[in-house]
Amino acid sequence: MTSPADLYATHRELLERAVAAAAARDYWSAFPESPSKSVYGEDAAPAGERAFAALLGKPFPIEVPGASGTVSTEHSPYGIELAVSYPKADPLALVAAARAAISGWRAVGPEGRAGIATEILKRINARIFEMAHAVQHTSGQAFVMAFQAGGAHAQDRALEAIAYALAATTRMPAQASWSKPQRGGDPLSMTKTGTVVGRGVALVIGCTTFPTWNSYPGLFASLVTGNPVIVKPHPGAVLPLAITVQICREVLAEAGLNPDVVTLAAEQPGDGIAATIATHPDVRIVDFTGSSEFGDWLEANARQAVVYTEKAGLNTVVLDSTDDYKGLLRNLAFSLSLYSGQMCTTPQNLLIPRDGITTEDGARTPEQFGADLSAALGKLLGDPKRAAGTLGAIVNDGVLARLTEAAGAPGVVHGSEAVADEQFPGATIRTPVVVRLDSADDKTYTREWFGPVSFLITTDSTEHSLRIFTETVRAHGALTALVHSTSPAVLDAAREAALDAGVHLSENLTGGVFVNQTAAFSDLHGTGANPAATASLTDDYFVAGRFFTLQSRHHV
Amino acid sequence: MTSPADLYATHRELLERAVAAAAARDYWSAFPESPSKSVYGEDAAPAGERAFAALLGKPFPIEVPGASGTVSTEHSPYGIELAVSYPKADPLALVAAARAAISGWRAVGPEGRAGIATEILKRINARIFEMAHAVQHTSGQAFVMAFQAGGAHAQDRALEAIAYALAATTRMPAQASWSKPQRGGDPLSMTKTGTVVGRGVALVIGCTTFPTWNSYPGLFASLVTGNPVIVKPHPGAVLPLAITVQICREVLAEAGLNPDVVTLAAEQPGDGIAATIATHPDVRIVDFTGSSEFGDWLEANARQAVVYTEKAGLNTVVLDSTDDYKGLLRNLAFSLSLYSGQMCTTPQNLLIPRDGITTEDGARTPEQFGADLSAALGKLLGDPKRAAGTLGAIVNDGVLARLTEAAGAPGVVHGSEAVADEQFPGATIRTPVVVRLDSADDKTYTREWFGPVSFLITTDSTEHSLRIFTETVRAHGALTALVHSTSPAVLDAAREAALDAGVHLSENLTGGVFVNQTAAFSDLHGTGANPAATASLTDDYFVAGRFFTLQSRHHV
Repeated sequence: MTSPADLYATHRELLERAVAAAAARDYWSAFPESPSKSVYGEDAAPAGERAFAALLGKPFPIEVPGASGTVSTEHSPYGIELAVSYPKADPLALVAAARAAISGWRAVGPEGRAGIATEILKRINARIFEMAHAVQHTSGQAFVMAFQAGGAHAQDRALEAIAYALAATTRMPAQASWSKPQRGGDPLSMTKTGTVVGRGVALVIGCTTFPTWNSYPGLFASLVTGNPVIVKPHPGAVLPLAITVQICREVLAEAGLNPDVVTLAAEQPGDGIAATIATHPDVRIVDFTGSSEFGDWLEANARQAVVYTEKAGLNTVVLDSTDDYKGLLRNLAFSLSLYSGQMCTTPQNLLIPRDGITTEDGARTPEQFGADLSAALGKLLGDPKRAAGTLGAIVNDGVLARLTEAAGAPGVVHGSEAVADEQFPGATIRTPVVVRLDSADDKTYTREWFGPVSFLITTDSTEHSLRIFTETVRAHGALTALVHSTSPAVLDAAREAALDAGVHLSENLTGGVFVNQTAAFSDLHGTGANPAATASLTDDYFVAGRFFTLQSRHHV
Repeated sequence: MTSPADLYATHRELLERAVAAAAARDYWSAFPESPSKSVYGEDAAPAGERAFAALLGKPFPIEVPGASGTVSTEHSPYGIELAVSYPKADPLALVAAARAAISGWRAVGPEGRAGIATEILKRINARIFEMAHAVQHTSGQAFVMAFQAGGAHAQDRALEAIAYALAATTRMPAQASWSKPQRGGDPLSMTKTGTVVGRGVALVIGCTTFPTWNSYPGLFASLVTGNPVIVKPHPGAVLPLAITVQICREVLAEAGLNPDVVTLAAEQPGDGIAATIATHPDVRIVDFTGSSEFGDWLEANARQAVVYTEKAGLNTVVLDSTDDYKGLLRNLAFSLSLYSGQMCTTPQNLLIPRDGITTEDGARTPEQFGADLSAALGKLLGDPKRAAGTLGAIVNDGVLARLTEAAGAPGVVHGSEAVADEQFPGATIRTPVVVRLDSADDKTYTREWFGPVSFLITTDSTEHSLRIFTETVRAHGALTALVHSTSPAVLDAAREAALDAGVHLSENLTGGVFVNQTAAFSDLHGTGANPAATASLTDDYFVAGRFFTLQSRHHV
């Protein structure tokens, strides 16, 4: 048996480095994003592939308290048969099991919990190739992206959450001495003890597109702050979280703790167990990524809990001027194409003044810009093999339906085409569609078209673009924003507009950084200041609501 | 004009000391609690009294945007005529004025805002005698207590909130460099800027009993995190907050800022402007101290805001054993008597096993304990002058009605008596009532009897007492709990029970520290973990929800 304290000692140096990196917000990463042999070893790739293949067509080996029967709900966007089955959860049994685990988990203390969490993460990283296949065949991300976003980057985000939770729960001393001078007498002296107490049972509700990346911050933040966690994957992407929960329970049991500190809640689509668990009186924390509809429902109905949601939004690009037009086009084309725009961070609304933008090669009208962007997309996605590696596969019929609807609209400047995949002939792969609109077409562009659909919207001026940007994002939310301008005055105005809108801003991205990507330990993801998300991944606010510090005091 | 940066420079050392004290949680105080001449100077007391007298019978000199007409709503519990009138607020005009102040206040930045807030606090401290009279004649606190709790301690709590808000808003660097190595190329390098953005317009709703102490943490936390604040005093205790807002506006204007960053919302009782303002879409933060009824209403209805409430509770004492019986009685009698039990921290439910408690003088049955406690109250309050100094005055008819109801119940072990005051013959002063109940009388003791009413409740055993303690506090809340025991096993069980109940615990208080008092920078007040309060005063959670950090990034 390895105690939580032993695990903390083992991982202490890494945790201290992570806490320091989160504070400095410079570049740092704990988990290598390259799937190369030189990093992960000669055998890692084939072993991971074998491990993934061995899971297919079988019941997934995991214990779930109170489960009865099984469910098998996943379909690979790459067309292979998965047929993994999971124990079908009984929501009340899961809540009862989690509640029974509370006091033991509380007694472990912040450092021990951080030790356990980091050990879990190390073992997840050791299975990164297996995990990448699991993410690829549920989300539709291309393999390398699944390895990075679903593997290394998700693990970095998890470690970041552990670091914030550990720092927040140890910032107040566990023991303090208090001595108040008294006139003409001995001082009043007391010893004061602070104990971190979790808020209660936590629920994490996963999504199909980023089953690990979007679930890990809430999962690990809740764990380290002292809360047992029920993990409810999307029925379309169970495997990556089932592997995660399996590892959690393994580490907990080896440390002599109740494994029900983390449980898996798999369901048949339509069972609605997320709503049942989220509104249970003992459930006090809910983390959710997904549709605005269910996110808003959770915020309105899970009143006994703190609710962290990440929902839909209108990611916006304000186009004013550039001195690197080719770089702009290349960068933007890649942002629209990466994982077929199925990122919560993909730009949807591209705002361009009627008179066009200025570039180092002269002015470009909206019409010319549309043609140039279309050409850049064509160039990026011209080779089918490279295109498939960038686009990944379409995750579900909902995305496909929106793509079809948009592609049939007037004003298409870049049409969507099917792309064939050599390795997976059954894969559903499409290039993105871009449609020209006018600023008056707000009925169309003020709803989110999640997937490879973007709008090039003509406005009266950059000032008008900034006003639309602020108003639409304040009202409907956004996770990202990008401005292209060579004018310091416009950049200042864009920064002010982004502060008013409550969204993070990227400026003049023309190289290897893309607006849809954020780096753990440096970039915040989401703000809380607009309707797209209630908090950032990860800052103090994201962890502070998950625990309380309770004091006891007595005279020395 | 003194700029916010100048004010930050002026107060920087004090702020750094406060941040360090809040982190260490040892004894520290910035504002002396003694009203002696040696501390505040020869003339401070008479000058303060003159300043207070000069306010009476007149319109209070303060500008309120959009106000029309005046209100005059206060009555001194000491029977003197106040007749101060205030501009009657128009809630929509106040919200509009606050909203107009947002971007200017945001631009000041965390350090500048902390500088402004500390300057405000220094000027409040310079008027501490005037403030003490204002608190005395609205809350009914005796003068020395009004000077301490309404003056120095409230100012310490305010500085603590400023320190937490400053630390939280500067923990993430305002500027960071990020440089990610690239295989076979130059690193990707970016500059990242973090800007603190307040959540929106803040509302602070004050109470009659602690108009400053309970309002200052929310007021100063919201200010320093970048939010304009509307201060809505209880109609019975306007003056202390009117003075506070007057000083806020004076400092803001002198610094060249919009004084509407802080405004006063005075109303006629029954106008209900707190509800109107709290549910306005632009109001994003609400701080409230008062009844559970309105607190619960705010939590349910001010859905667009984060709501911090401090409401009613069942403060509990678990009596098991002691080796200082006289000290226990003296300490408890004082806790029940101080400010006539009109503190949210005064013990109400005293749980004693049927077989009695063991003391250094042998066992004491519940009956004997009741008699001994009554005698201790008699001794403490025997001298009318000293009694008046401890008891203060009864704040309103509601408290008086509860006192009369309790005093008419069977099982009274200490009856309430009127006490005459030399200086203020019109003062309403009463000694506390203690009533014996059985553990089965939970209909009576599970509601809060705010005021000088306590119950000595017979239980089957200490274990039973701890069970009642946990169950009643989990269900109905509490701000304080106290255990008396010489048994390490019982103390351990009491600590575990307090963690389960979600309440801070004091142990074996027999000297000069009382369960109803908490010290800024060391003791937390409220936990968030039981229904009596949604957060502690003051920790990171109390400030973290008041702001967001928004990033912008660009290549170097």
